[in-house]
Amino acid sequence: MERRHQVVILGGGFAGLSAAHTLRHAPVDVTLIDRRNFHLFQPLLYQVATGGLSPANIAAPLRGVVKKYKNTQVLLGEAIDIDAGKRRVILKDGAVPYDTLIVGTGARHHYFGHDDWAQFAPGLKTLEDATAIRRQIFLAFEAAERDTDSAKERAWLTFVIVGAGPSGVELAGALSEIAHDTLKHDFRRVDPSQAQIILVEAADRVLPSYPSDLSEHAAESLRRLHVTLRTGATVTEVRQGAVTLETKAGKECIAARTVLWAAGVQASRLGQVLSRAAGAQIDRSGRPRVAPDLSLPGHPEILVVGDLANFSHPEGKPLPGVAQVAIQQGRYAARLIQARLRGATLPDFHYQDKGNMATIGRAAAVVELPWLHFSGYPAWLAWLFIHLLYIVEFQNRLLVMVQWAWNYLSFNRSARLITGESPFPLDL
Amino acid sequence: MERRHQVVILGGGFAGLSAAHTLRHAPVDVTLIDRRNFHLFQPLLYQVATGGLSPANIAAPLRGVVKKYKNTQVLLGEAIDIDAGKRRVILKDGAVPYDTLIVGTGARHHYFGHDDWAQFAPGLKTLEDATAIRRQIFLAFEAAERDTDSAKERAWLTFVIVGAGPSGVELAGALSEIAHDTLKHDFRRVDPSQAQIILVEAADRVLPSYPSDLSEHAAESLRRLHVTLRTGATVTEVRQGAVTLETKAGKECIAARTVLWAAGVQASRLGQVLSRAAGAQIDRSGRPRVAPDLSLPGHPEILVVGDLANFSHPEGKPLPGVAQVAIQQGRYAARLIQARLRGATLPDFHYQDKGNMATIGRAAAVVELPWLHFSGYPAWLAWLFIHLLYIVEFQNRLLVMVQWAWNYLSFNRSARLITGESPFPLDL
Repeated sequence: MERRHQVVILGGGFAGLSAAHTLRHAPVDVTLIDRRNFHLFQPLLYQVATGGLSPANIAAPLRGVVKKYKNTQVLLGEAIDIDAGKRRVILKDGAVPYDTLIVGTGARHHYFGHDDWAQFAPGLKTLEDATAIRRQIFLAFEAAERDTDSAKERAWLTFVIVGAGPSGVELAGALSEIAHDTLKHDFRRVDPSQAQIILVEAADRVLPSYPSDLSEHAAESLRRLHVTLRTGATVTEVRQGAVTLETKAGKECIAARTVLWAAGVQASRLGQVLSRAAGAQIDRSGRPRVAPDLSLPGHPEILVVGDLANFSHPEGKPLPGVAQVAIQQGRYAARLIQARLRGATLPDFHYQDKGNMATIGRAAAVVELPWLHFSGYPAWLAWLFIHLLYIVEFQNRLLVMVQWAWNYLSFNRSARLITGESPFPLDL
Repeated sequence: MERRHQVVILGGGFAGLSAAHTLRHAPVDVTLIDRRNFHLFQPLLYQVATGGLSPANIAAPLRGVVKKYKNTQVLLGEAIDIDAGKRRVILKDGAVPYDTLIVGTGARHHYFGHDDWAQFAPGLKTLEDATAIRRQIFLAFEAAERDTDSAKERAWLTFVIVGAGPSGVELAGALSEIAHDTLKHDFRRVDPSQAQIILVEAADRVLPSYPSDLSEHAAESLRRLHVTLRTGATVTEVRQGAVTLETKAGKECIAARTVLWAAGVQASRLGQVLSRAAGAQIDRSGRPRVAPDLSLPGHPEILVVGDLANFSHPEGKPLPGVAQVAIQQGRYAARLIQARLRGATLPDFHYQDKGNMATIGRAAAVVELPWLHFSGYPAWLAWLFIHLLYIVEFQNRLLVMVQWAWNYLSFNRSARLITGESPFPLDL
């Protein structure tokens, strides 16, 4: 049998899966390598963190997803290095040769040089992050119910979210729902609706990457949900039980037992590896800058896609780290490989921005389309529809729909489990 | 306001919740104390361990469950001692006074004096156990796919289950489904259906507590599922990667990377506490022996219910640790309190055995009714129906139904996520 072109894909996120899907009938052998055995639908991760959905609802086992791609095999493994000369990916326990390498290992959060804040202000990138944050949120209400000291009770009921991008706004909206609806009749001593939810943003408005009319709509919706907005404020310190903000007016310390990080993003470690092993030029966030065809300059056989890539259209800003970009880049990388095998060429990658959306709690959202902005209930329905459509695997779509319908009608969140290592966890 | 009778319930399992439910309109104040914030539907825990259901599907937040019981408050806490003289439960951080105490803190597994086996042969009692076992099972197949040494591959694909009671039988059936159906087309190198599933039982038949005709039906179903039965075999050693059996024929060592413990059960720590603090007589499993009205001899105000209690009808064996017993005992305890408040008496507790059932994989089960035994498909339907009926919270019932229907039709198990601490976990 003829040796076929070997494609190795690192990362089973939106970019990697989109590439594998596009290549499924191509005359190539595909090896998809991921550290995890599932694809994660990150846009809904905040719903796991806030007890609205279960981890399995937003995760699809990778082997199940690519089962029908006869040319594709899945390897559970972690790439620790790349041998660009010999064209091999180095795993902890072995090496995998490639003819073309697609790297889409994504991003993690970034504390702007304050990595010690991570323990007090967890970010939300993995399922483990989500269940840990869920634990922290619901334990805070339990602790408030137990603590009879009113200052301490207040600190337990204060939630600070750093960063008012889509993730921060979604988290704030969900937290408000928890306090005002879900837990309404659950406690006998404390009143969960007294919880204070504070959304901190360094820019002068929430959703700073959106048009300003949508920022205003979002701010209005958040205020209606009793979320306190602190725009133009930067975080200068995070420690156990407290966070310090700096604004034009000066410094201020807020006593809060729960601080969630939705601010910075940093490329995964593979960015550094590509810099060292293939001479990639990386930006401040650790992302390799890619050529107009998504390849690394000097290494046409290495394509970088998704959140990991720093791609800019001529005279444009780098593309944002959203699923849409990742899906289009994964598809482009796959098509480029097929074109090259045919001896053909492909026009440069061009991102088709189909719009952006963020949801803000129950029945409120903002949608930015190229030709229209809208918000409120219609935007929320659009958000629901699009997210259900993009969830991988029909079964998850069905289960999420049932769960959402139930949550909406009952004001309930049945996945609000406090799970984790220590069986009795109130000694926070 | 008049001081009402204070009832404290330790444990939000079947027994505790059944007591709280029965007391919901009684003129008493109820405090329900649990270490966890949710009620766990233990009969389906093995389905979480085998990726068929999500943790939240079989757990119901306690505060949600008792929300409408106006006389009930929930305390997240762990009872570390009981002051029987002053009638107070001692928590890590405080004390709760009671007039009547209901203790239903259940049981955990027991390694017959070999606690060091726990690390190599995990048991299944908590949600954390279930996700850890799920991780271990699905990682084993991944490791087999990676390991090119055929003896090692064989050990990864060998699963030993110790104990052929209902839990062991259910686990074995589910594991067989995983190997033969769920993962059928998922791997490219290994054939999951080559997995060996070995069910070890010290007694001379599976389901030894059932009538022997049902044991035979179960054994037949298990053989049809390619499960190897090793009855009359005791485990004499468990270590990393191997388990040693002893039979009449001698000793035998099986190389297996996954060993699951479904054998012994031991009372929770509260059994010891009651022995020390209230003079309870405890049996070999650490369960307090209770009077015919479920109270501790000498302490009519302390009632012990569910798996924790050793209760025997005159001339009978102690009742088994099943949900049915717990529910009836919880209800009896609540009624006893109400009768005493009225100055009335209640006949002794009498267990109404409505039957027992165990399921063995897809479309097979055995049902023991007082007047009828049956097995196969009808038994499986009865099993499905009863379990759906008893799941707490309507939403979970709905979600489990959807999930089961899907799993059944698609042969899929979408909750087969490998989650946990170490991001790349193949260095087992």
